[in-house]
Amino acid sequence: MSATKFVYFFGGKKAEGASEMKNLLGGKGANLAEMVNLGIPVPPGFTITTEVCTHYYKNGNSYPAGLREEVDSAMRKVEEIMGAKFGDATNPLLVSVRSGARASMPGMMDTVLNLGLNEQTVQALIKRTGNARFAYDSYRRFVAMYGDVVLGLKPEAKGEEDPFEVILHAKKKERGVKFDNELNADDLKDLVARFKSEIKKRLGKDFPENPMDQLWGAIGAVFGSWMNARAIEYRRIYKIPEDWGTAVNVQSMVFGNTGEESGTGVAFTRDPASGENRFYGEFLMNAQGEDVVAGIRTPLSIEKLREVMPHAYSELEGIYKKLETHYRDMQDMEFTIQDRKLWMLQTRVGKRTGFAAIRIAVEMVDEKLIDQKTALMRLEPEQLVQLLRPIFDTEDKKAAVKASRVLAKGLPAGPGAACGRAVFSAPDAVAWARRGEKVILIRIETSPEDIRGMDAAEGILTAQGGMTSHAALVARQMGKVCVAGCGALEVDYGKGLMVVKGRTVKEGDWISIDGFTGEVIEGKVATKPSEVIQVLLEKSLDPAKAPVYQLYAKIMGWADEHRRLRIRTNADQPDQSANAVAFGAEGIGLCRTEHMFFGGERIKAVREMILSEDRAGREKALAKLLPMQRGDFEGIFRVMGTRPVTIRLLDPPLHEFLPQKEEEFVELAKEMGVTLEKLKTRNAALHELNPMLGHRGCRLGITYPEVYEMQVQAIMEAACQVKSEKIDVHPEIMIPLTGHKAEMKVMRELCVRIADQVVARSKAKVEYMVGTMIELPRACLVADQIANDAEFFSFGTNDLTQTTFGLSRDDVRNFLPFYIEHGLYKVDPFVSIDQEGMGQLIELAVKKGRGTRAKLKVGICGEHGGEPDSVEFCHRTGFDYVSCSPFRVPIARLAAARAVLRESK
Amino acid sequence: MSATKFVYFFGGKKAEGASEMKNLLGGKGANLAEMVNLGIPVPPGFTITTEVCTHYYKNGNSYPAGLREEVDSAMRKVEEIMGAKFGDATNPLLVSVRSGARASMPGMMDTVLNLGLNEQTVQALIKRTGNARFAYDSYRRFVAMYGDVVLGLKPEAKGEEDPFEVILHAKKKERGVKFDNELNADDLKDLVARFKSEIKKRLGKDFPENPMDQLWGAIGAVFGSWMNARAIEYRRIYKIPEDWGTAVNVQSMVFGNTGEESGTGVAFTRDPASGENRFYGEFLMNAQGEDVVAGIRTPLSIEKLREVMPHAYSELEGIYKKLETHYRDMQDMEFTIQDRKLWMLQTRVGKRTGFAAIRIAVEMVDEKLIDQKTALMRLEPEQLVQLLRPIFDTEDKKAAVKASRVLAKGLPAGPGAACGRAVFSAPDAVAWARRGEKVILIRIETSPEDIRGMDAAEGILTAQGGMTSHAALVARQMGKVCVAGCGALEVDYGKGLMVVKGRTVKEGDWISIDGFTGEVIEGKVATKPSEVIQVLLEKSLDPAKAPVYQLYAKIMGWADEHRRLRIRTNADQPDQSANAVAFGAEGIGLCRTEHMFFGGERIKAVREMILSEDRAGREKALAKLLPMQRGDFEGIFRVMGTRPVTIRLLDPPLHEFLPQKEEEFVELAKEMGVTLEKLKTRNAALHELNPMLGHRGCRLGITYPEVYEMQVQAIMEAACQVKSEKIDVHPEIMIPLTGHKAEMKVMRELCVRIADQVVARSKAKVEYMVGTMIELPRACLVADQIANDAEFFSFGTNDLTQTTFGLSRDDVRNFLPFYIEHGLYKVDPFVSIDQEGMGQLIELAVKKGRGTRAKLKVGICGEHGGEPDSVEFCHRTGFDYVSCSPFRVPIARLAAARAVLRESK
Repeated sequence: MSATKFVYFFGGKKAEGASEMKNLLGGKGANLAEMVNLGIPVPPGFTITTEVCTHYYKNGNSYPAGLREEVDSAMRKVEEIMGAKFGDATNPLLVSVRSGARASMPGMMDTVLNLGLNEQTVQALIKRTGNARFAYDSYRRFVAMYGDVVLGLKPEAKGEEDPFEVILHAKKKERGVKFDNELNADDLKDLVARFKSEIKKRLGKDFPENPMDQLWGAIGAVFGSWMNARAIEYRRIYKIPEDWGTAVNVQSMVFGNTGEESGTGVAFTRDPASGENRFYGEFLMNAQGEDVVAGIRTPLSIEKLREVMPHAYSELEGIYKKLETHYRDMQDMEFTIQDRKLWMLQTRVGKRTGFAAIRIAVEMVDEKLIDQKTALMRLEPEQLVQLLRPIFDTEDKKAAVKASRVLAKGLPAGPGAACGRAVFSAPDAVAWARRGEKVILIRIETSPEDIRGMDAAEGILTAQGGMTSHAALVARQMGKVCVAGCGALEVDYGKGLMVVKGRTVKEGDWISIDGFTGEVIEGKVATKPSEVIQVLLEKSLDPAKAPVYQLYAKIMGWADEHRRLRIRTNADQPDQSANAVAFGAEGIGLCRTEHMFFGGERIKAVREMILSEDRAGREKALAKLLPMQRGDFEGIFRVMGTRPVTIRLLDPPLHEFLPQKEEEFVELAKEMGVTLEKLKTRNAALHELNPMLGHRGCRLGITYPEVYEMQVQAIMEAACQVKSEKIDVHPEIMIPLTGHKAEMKVMRELCVRIADQVVARSKAKVEYMVGTMIELPRACLVADQIANDAEFFSFGTNDLTQTTFGLSRDDVRNFLPFYIEHGLYKVDPFVSIDQEGMGQLIELAVKKGRGTRAKLKVGICGEHGGEPDSVEFCHRTGFDYVSCSPFRVPIARLAAARAVLRESK
Repeated sequence: MSATKFVYFFGGKKAEGASEMKNLLGGKGANLAEMVNLGIPVPPGFTITTEVCTHYYKNGNSYPAGLREEVDSAMRKVEEIMGAKFGDATNPLLVSVRSGARASMPGMMDTVLNLGLNEQTVQALIKRTGNARFAYDSYRRFVAMYGDVVLGLKPEAKGEEDPFEVILHAKKKERGVKFDNELNADDLKDLVARFKSEIKKRLGKDFPENPMDQLWGAIGAVFGSWMNARAIEYRRIYKIPEDWGTAVNVQSMVFGNTGEESGTGVAFTRDPASGENRFYGEFLMNAQGEDVVAGIRTPLSIEKLREVMPHAYSELEGIYKKLETHYRDMQDMEFTIQDRKLWMLQTRVGKRTGFAAIRIAVEMVDEKLIDQKTALMRLEPEQLVQLLRPIFDTEDKKAAVKASRVLAKGLPAGPGAACGRAVFSAPDAVAWARRGEKVILIRIETSPEDIRGMDAAEGILTAQGGMTSHAALVARQMGKVCVAGCGALEVDYGKGLMVVKGRTVKEGDWISIDGFTGEVIEGKVATKPSEVIQVLLEKSLDPAKAPVYQLYAKIMGWADEHRRLRIRTNADQPDQSANAVAFGAEGIGLCRTEHMFFGGERIKAVREMILSEDRAGREKALAKLLPMQRGDFEGIFRVMGTRPVTIRLLDPPLHEFLPQKEEEFVELAKEMGVTLEKLKTRNAALHELNPMLGHRGCRLGITYPEVYEMQVQAIMEAACQVKSEKIDVHPEIMIPLTGHKAEMKVMRELCVRIADQVVARSKAKVEYMVGTMIELPRACLVADQIANDAEFFSFGTNDLTQTTFGLSRDDVRNFLPFYIEHGLYKVDPFVSIDQEGMGQLIELAVKKGRGTRAKLKVGICGEHGGEPDSVEFCHRTGFDYVSCSPFRVPIARLAAARAVLRESK
């Protein structure tokens, strides 16, 4: 026997596994074992570990020695408990074979049910249940599923239907019926025969009759499905490592479709959409589990079970409470009732919307089920975005209702308000979105193939399926607005339209869906800011009347208690700055000054400056800009008060301020009183082949010091003015694009000279700092030298990414999407800091910089500053602060707290 | 007393210093001390150390405590030996005050002569010499020099003449004479008075009468001149560190202008232009040293001294032999004869042309004066360039002579052949050169202000001055072609022309100068390759009849004995490759394939490939290119034989192959049979804002694998073909722009797959390698990962410089020259590897790469590969080879040898 255990049995009163063995047994396997240990009725079975999966892929799709013996031995224990025998001609045991990875990947991998049926065992099943229709229905489902998943029978050509569906369709036509359940036992028996002969025809071999062969075929197929395209795509989106692998669960079948005393369902211990603390779920009588999840029949609310089968409902109620208390988290459970007996098939932590996640976390803390830290660790910072997202404007929606534009109502499966153009396929959703259009993806039901289209859409609308259907589940996880199971829709994929109560919505028509109410509305409905925005920014809503804001405030309060990083914002206008402060910004990390150079009189003066031939001419033009810049800074300083404000001196190359078009040049020449030719000569002299690597940043400050002198003067005069108004301002002057100690030295001297002159002239003694952006690899390499003259470093990770990778963000369209799609890059380095590569430069720079200047202030002002993984990296690397756009400030606050908690783990 | 000694006395038979104390005493001071110790007659004096200079600049231009006492004490020793007293009314000692840095900086810093003269001491001098004219001549020179250098009297406005020159000119006009020496004692006495009153008028204070005040004023001025603009510029060009500082030498005056029994001269122990082993120099009787160097009077050849003053000549002959034997290097000496007594004022290692350096080094080895290693260490690799430079074509020059185009003959001060347009000022030389024109700078005489113009010119032509004039000295050092002291030229700066024997040469006219013969020729003269080229590349000259080639071959042989680095070349054509092999290349380090994509049928196929909408279309076009590429590679493999050949797959973005102009597009559309609109759409889709950081390198190989597949196929088919011809080829396939392990992995798989297919089809079993350029910072940071799939690294330091600095080489024109001029960058990082910054990345990459793959082959193929400092860096960093353009191969060979020798020092 091998030293490693590959197979873990569960069933009866005792399991070999437990919930903490998720890495080895996968989520499903570990939780099945745990339920058994909790005394909850679970059909017995066993789990083949994820290590077997790893072995399988490392060794050319082969299994480790000893696995077969362990499987055989576990199967015997199952047989014992079930009192049936796998493959037995008189009392056969049937099993399901399912995947189960460490992280839930709903619908991504393959499953085979009813395994163990063959011509012999099906007879035994008929004899035992007395239900030939059920037995043949199970058999034909098994053959079709096995044929698809294990034997790989797919549609032969694109656009063709599934081969088994084709046969089924033909059969129904022959029999003149519309639904599957109108077929009788003989019809189904005939279907089995036709399915098998189709398999024989296509593959040239018989369907396997030996249940053991069936079992190993299914195990191999499940392991194989770890590497199917859907699973790879899903892992990419959710950053799940490939080497985790999946476990395989083999479990005795129980049937929800043996008759009207059987049923199956899915339930949540709390509402996964809103987070409300109520038992929540759906079921179908006389059905198999897949019928609920796949959304083919719209199921009943779990409340109804109380009426239909009170004892099962009450047992289920006891179980759900036990499970939530045990796991201290909202659970998503699957159950089956077979001939009035309740079996639990699965429990796992339930996916939820951002709304629900926050509400559940806060309420569980109130209920003392979990502590604050646990609550924070359960929230993905990105989920906060849902709290900030617009909701429909009440007045405009009322008007839509009045105008009878409400087409129908479905299930509110993903909260929020979404407007977009109707599209009826996932590829269309992707195509429209690429063109910059907002779309609502409308499907009869969604399937795992639709995942990219769902990702591209603003919202998802389905005609079939309940709150636990694929569409609802995935939308919840993606944080998409979703209305599911809206039965009134008659979708016609062929024509690219849907008809709702006689009204037609074609591809491209505008449609609105309300994920709070389930309403589907023709045309656009105006949106208004979320509660949080209304309270914080518009101050138009009483916080006491804003429950969503209350949740937000609690989470933010807890986050602030734990985080070490300071959170600043990137803002260059007083109103932006005020918003950021409302969101909790503790300073400005990046105030760009170039935006202030555009607009009316300013751009004229800027162009005059650029076109001047000597310093005197430039200084004359700059003198016009000085009071305007000073005014800008005064406004910002007044809003920010005592909070530090980092102002970056002019960064972009000068040609960015010149016109682009011929006619603009003609006009400008007239305005400036120079010849068109002169203007064009100057423009040509400024033209750059690679402006990203050109004459910009401190290179401008060094060659045209008068520009920076004006800016420093404006900053310091504004600071002195505001300080004289009794506000203790803290300006931090930031030099862009430094790459060499000499640049920093020259620039620091310039700043200090001008700043000290201004302060000397003023009565207000303003304290200021001079520091630099770190956005070039060389700056990182010589950070020790640069720190001699820089009091702070602010990593400009956008440009640092561009230079480290040699990638122009403007020019990646033809290859970066390809890289990400094909997994060459695990993440887009413009979204999340490339810790493996660029991270080394950042760590080096911090170490070297602090080596020279122990108290060097270190921050980040690239767009990564609001991305949770990057925030965590900054925390680990010893940053003092991160800076991000105002609306990302709450996310950064939460991410910063989580970084501390994760570290202390 | 301070612990440090600041002042070193020399004189009599014993000096406190010695030649090995150059860092402390400067070159001049150390050699004066050494000469004293060798028993050579040197006017006594003392040296104030370079440490005082450093102290001076670190402490706000003040001197260390104790310096005055040491100066006083040394002065007393000088007085004792000379039997005269500084400032004494009856027997005054006069001194010179000169700079003297560790490295010679001829004419860059200030000097004051005849110091100690005042109204009282001048009378004593008259009494003692009985020569009133001499005394007043010395006095007026002193006052003018002191007024200029110490008191800072410069022309008041631009274009105005020197204030003392103005007065002198007025005096000569009054007296109706043309030359200075026509003025008598009274005239000169009057000049002194007028000079002093001008000083009083301008500065509001009297000329200092106290000799001690004069001395300290001069010392301060000399230290101050270390930071004058000329000196800074000179240090920049010759990479002399600012913190070396200068020493100050105070030495008793001896006079070459006391009468016809006095004189002064400059001599070399060997010919500094040709390197010939003969005593070589120039002198003037009744003159001061500055008269020789400044080139105002054209001096006599040293041979003449044998006739004029045989005993001095013979003493000098003894001294020069002693000095060369002692120093084991060619010496440049200054001497003065005062009243028949010979004094040596200076000896130092003589500057020489590249020709001379090589000849002297080789001959000194033959004479057993030095060993091979010393010879190699004395040659700057760049000097080899002079051996490769064109010389005038014999036939065309004969024709020019026949056509009487030879205008005049001057001194052959810098060997070589130069043609260019005549310019008559240094700023004009710079301006014409910036426009891409070749120029010959023509001056009556050059001065240190002209240095940038000389640098910009192809050659230098002067009307006055000898072989040791400023022009000759600087040209020699710069390796410029130079004809000096060509008295027949009548240069008119005002009109911008010169007249030679009635013929006029205007600014912009073509002129040719022969630095071997001194001839000045009207118009252009055709040039032909140097001896080395004729022997090696053209094989048109018998090596035995080529003495210059013999020198070259000896040096190269010695270099090859010592170097460890292999030298490869960057070449992409068979003829280039053959040249490189002749120059000693041991392989190709970079064969670019994109050049092969241009021209006739090829560019058509390339454009067809780019414009194809799908892979099939591209493959069709590539199939046309395949045989052409294969042919290219076969040619190169045959030339290179068993030497390794590194071939880089396609690198530039595809839009570089599309036309630039509207009409070309119209034509192309017709040719390709597509609409103009389609062409333009495709062109727009390919357009990039920053092509340097765009869709290029392996990003093309990954998104359009068929392109690289074709190239690998062509390489390997060519290799198999040539191998079947019994040549053991070694192709190395190089992937450009790798930045991520996944790129390298995918590219390696592609290369190996295609290459193995080709080899399998062929009978010739070619061995090949797959490696990568390292040209992105990220590649350096993750070099350990990349080395998993790369068998070699070749640093593409051009692009690595661009990305590390965030500098586009195409866009630096508006700031990089400014940076270098103002000393922000010590060296241009595109010329010499930025060791301080980028060097860290290279070192890291080598370390990480070899950590993964101990035998990783490491090279460089950027343009830095032929630059001596960069070659030395590569040696130190453990590279296996450097690769450079064919003509730089000899330089790299020498640099590689010197790197070994310097290391073992």
